[in-house]
Amino acid sequence: MPRGRALLYAQSGGVTAVINTSAWGVIDTAQRSRKVSKVLAGKDGILGVLHEQLIDVNAEKPSELARLRHTPGGIFGSCRLKLPGPDKDPKPYHRLLEVFQAHDIGYFLYNGGNDSQDTTNKISAFAQAAGVAVTCVGVPKTVDNDLAATDCCPGFGSVAKYVATTMLETRCDVASMARTSTKLFILEVMGRNAGWIAAAGALAGEAGGPVMLALPEVPHEPNRFVKAVKSRIDKHGYCCVVASEGLRDKRGRIISERGSRDAFAHAQLGGVAGILAEECKKALGVKCHWALADYMQRSARHLASATDLKQAEAVGREAVRCALAGTGGVMPAIVRDADSPYRWHVAPVPLARVANAERKLPRKFISKDGYFVTPACLRYLAPLIVGEDPPPYRDGLPVHARLRRRLVPPRLPGWHG
Amino acid sequence: MPRGRALLYAQSGGVTAVINTSAWGVIDTAQRSRKVSKVLAGKDGILGVLHEQLIDVNAEKPSELARLRHTPGGIFGSCRLKLPGPDKDPKPYHRLLEVFQAHDIGYFLYNGGNDSQDTTNKISAFAQAAGVAVTCVGVPKTVDNDLAATDCCPGFGSVAKYVATTMLETRCDVASMARTSTKLFILEVMGRNAGWIAAAGALAGEAGGPVMLALPEVPHEPNRFVKAVKSRIDKHGYCCVVASEGLRDKRGRIISERGSRDAFAHAQLGGVAGILAEECKKALGVKCHWALADYMQRSARHLASATDLKQAEAVGREAVRCALAGTGGVMPAIVRDADSPYRWHVAPVPLARVANAERKLPRKFISKDGYFVTPACLRYLAPLIVGEDPPPYRDGLPVHARLRRRLVPPRLPGWHG
Repeated sequence: MPRGRALLYAQSGGVTAVINTSAWGVIDTAQRSRKVSKVLAGKDGILGVLHEQLIDVNAEKPSELARLRHTPGGIFGSCRLKLPGPDKDPKPYHRLLEVFQAHDIGYFLYNGGNDSQDTTNKISAFAQAAGVAVTCVGVPKTVDNDLAATDCCPGFGSVAKYVATTMLETRCDVASMARTSTKLFILEVMGRNAGWIAAAGALAGEAGGPVMLALPEVPHEPNRFVKAVKSRIDKHGYCCVVASEGLRDKRGRIISERGSRDAFAHAQLGGVAGILAEECKKALGVKCHWALADYMQRSARHLASATDLKQAEAVGREAVRCALAGTGGVMPAIVRDADSPYRWHVAPVPLARVANAERKLPRKFISKDGYFVTPACLRYLAPLIVGEDPPPYRDGLPVHARLRRRLVPPRLPGWHG
Repeated sequence: MPRGRALLYAQSGGVTAVINTSAWGVIDTAQRSRKVSKVLAGKDGILGVLHEQLIDVNAEKPSELARLRHTPGGIFGSCRLKLPGPDKDPKPYHRLLEVFQAHDIGYFLYNGGNDSQDTTNKISAFAQAAGVAVTCVGVPKTVDNDLAATDCCPGFGSVAKYVATTMLETRCDVASMARTSTKLFILEVMGRNAGWIAAAGALAGEAGGPVMLALPEVPHEPNRFVKAVKSRIDKHGYCCVVASEGLRDKRGRIISERGSRDAFAHAQLGGVAGILAEECKKALGVKCHWALADYMQRSARHLASATDLKQAEAVGREAVRCALAGTGGVMPAIVRDADSPYRWHVAPVPLARVANAERKLPRKFISKDGYFVTPACLRYLAPLIVGEDPPPYRDGLPVHARLRRRLVPPRLPGWHG
């Protein structure tokens, strides 16, 4: 069977402020190519592909598609669905190939994190083994910055800018209140296993200053933590902490672990800031405030990093180029050429190097006491938050894309896998 | 004794994203007047005045003072200190007059909310009764928007813009995740007694849409709330709630302050959003995420409303004009001339009309079911968030004022009141 000429794009996992910018890079590059007959998007990621729910991107207004660059969330819908290996259950893989063939799809681009790159890799290998000519390419995305084989991940620069700016602003607030009121402020940020997001809070601080970090890479010792907070309050009048949701105790247990688990079997977190605040309130008797940024941090397109936006668009465009060149089983990665002035380029890496790997904050990036980062880490982080590229506003609110998301008519029987 | 020629300004209560813009309005107007010999600022509000800790504003670099317009927090420090009436304890009032006279202060401007306007009013009356020529003027400020006698309060427009933008952005996020993951997102915002801040979330929604509100003016009924959430999830696939920290039960008790620690131990640490999330998780079995904006919302100068900034500066400038004209015991209020196109002006109102009064969300602004607002409320809110006036950025972060905050030498014995 000859190679199909349609390109299918889908979004996966937790969304970011700039994943739609990658979508825009993919769509714009694909629509400009004569090799691509049409662009489709999976509704709610791979789940929509399995159910043959394919959005006809060519039916969208170009002016609305251009707004994807400044629209947070995942415009086509995302999903948390980890396919078991084809050795365990080949049915979903057969189904995907059927859908690809029924819709003349020759190119499949999946935009996600570790788990999704693993999925893309498996689909790529399965198609190749089955002799189906579909080129599968991963597009990197994750606020967690924990993908292997790339210097940074699209989505991270913007959350880093948001966390650093928020810490800089709330720090002003706490400093003004500290004499008679709040002396400790704790901001809880995402980062299940890796402390990259919390580390970005250091951009709003300085070594020996009132800003400190609680990283998942550094086991939490309550007494030592309380002492560190106290010494900052004594010295500066106040203390501001950026705490990772994944902060662990000495036995490796996540401090705020709750019951419910998501489809990837990751625990749903949220609550470490409250626990730390209680510890400090009890031990020091100071007034504490705490905030939980949750989805705010990863959808704050209004404060996205211009550097991150450029990278998100670039990996989308490069993914299409790889696909059209027939280079499957890869993911365009960000390669850093220099810290300052910052230079980078995009180069494809094999998905096998990315799939299921997880890159934590290296020890050399963490200060000796564990509560701050090193100058090397600041050099790494600093360029990623540079530049502003705000959305247009109307009546005081950001303008977002409004798509029709019209599905193409199904050509196969329903899927009940 | 002749009237002093120095002007003293101080900041009080919880700070806002634009209180320093009012400070800038005060300082710039005062420094341009030949009637004013010098501008002083109380360190940490009235507390610094009592302790004769007066910052020499004229010693600051003009270029840094100009940056007050885009610096969050209270640059001179704030305090939470409510003076008892002079009938109960006249000592602090005598002390304040001593400090005024020792430093040639003829004008005192206090920038705060209800309590602070009450303090200003008491000082004004006390000085007048004592025959001390010091003109006391209040400058309005509060994110809560609960001051009486003004159409809106400087600080509110910016927090409203932040909450509406955040809800619009996180709504995109939740919509993309809802099929396989989070179906309910709850954002907890400030507002202990008045629902103005939560109401601003309605600007990111529409009647009958997935965005709903939990207001302190509407008693929380768990079953009815869960049903309302469910109907939105059924209709839209997801639901987003903006909840006031001051949400109350039918008996008027603030929900996050009730006893029962055992039931929702974790949730209680996080206040009302965590409790509402638990209620919905239990009843509906849906995955919930929740965020707690806390200080983030009131220090987010990067997203301040240009309208709010103009009003914050205008009340500061008008307060100086009132003071120099000898019109004491007043506060410049915002008067609305028209909704659309929005027109407003500033006019002084007697402090007695403002002091200790608290303006809640009126019933006519709340929808029949209590979970949204009326078109009249949207007409009221809409103009307040209009316009962007971002701070300058350097290396990806907002640039804030850096002041020396040099104290003038004390001229009186210490204060041990």
